[in-house]
Amino acid sequence: MASRILRKLTAEQCLSLLGSVAVGRIVFTDKALPAIRPVNHILDGGAVIIRSHLSGGLARAVGSGRGVVVAYEADAIDPDGRIGWSVVVTGVAHLVADSREVARYEQALHPWVEMTMDCVIRIEPHIVTGYRLVDAAEPVSTP
Amino acid sequence: MASRILRKLTAEQCLSLLGSVAVGRIVFTDKALPAIRPVNHILDGGAVIIRSHLSGGLARAVGSGRGVVVAYEADAIDPDGRIGWSVVVTGVAHLVADSREVARYEQALHPWVEMTMDCVIRIEPHIVTGYRLVDAAEPVSTP
Repeated sequence: MASRILRKLTAEQCLSLLGSVAVGRIVFTDKALPAIRPVNHILDGGAVIIRSHLSGGLARAVGSGRGVVVAYEADAIDPDGRIGWSVVVTGVAHLVADSREVARYEQALHPWVEMTMDCVIRIEPHIVTGYRLVDAAEPVSTP
Repeated sequence: MASRILRKLTAEQCLSLLGSVAVGRIVFTDKALPAIRPVNHILDGGAVIIRSHLSGGLARAVGSGRGVVVAYEADAIDPDGRIGWSVVVTGVAHLVADSREVARYEQALHPWVEMTMDCVIRIEPHIVTGYRLVDAAEPVSTP
């Protein structure tokens, strides 16, 4: 297996990759423990939009106040070729309160799981980082 | 698209699925922020073993003392068929200190990325949860 290196992506490349996939993972703190859950998302003006249910740990963590800092990760890694990418957005997650915005997001983003998803969460990115896992011999200029 | 439900997995099923893939995501706190990083792993007697570098945020978080609570997640979700699984192990992560153990793990687990990986981290699972995302019409007895 040829050796692999991590090549840093720009924030623009990161958001473009994040928008190219349907599923990511929300990372938050639930009852003082690190928690992570896969979820489907859309991007809206650079923000990550997900849906959840008010009775769950995520909505409890986000609350209705000033929001909480979360991370949102997506990746596509080929375990055979050992190439791929990973993007992490760190930012403040809020419950979307405006009913017109909620309605708009409910139209645009359908939960995959058949359960009540009675809240919409928006993550405003503050830190956007990402890497591409590439063959060390690959030229830097590869698009 | 037929509707999907989440079916809870047993801890044994979770560890079996986790052992069936090479890559997962370590979730920890770095400088008071939620952090997540993809990494390759092996299982050893139910513990998750990963390698890292001492200069990085993960080793700083784990430290050399009593360890820290982390989460480790792996999944395989087909975005077209909308089926798959996700497993989360929550437990205490320690730097492996015993030099014979370190040598054994360095033999068994090779980092994918060409960089110095000078520490081995063991996560002892305390909470193991997982779900399978299935077609709601799928019989419960499916293996």
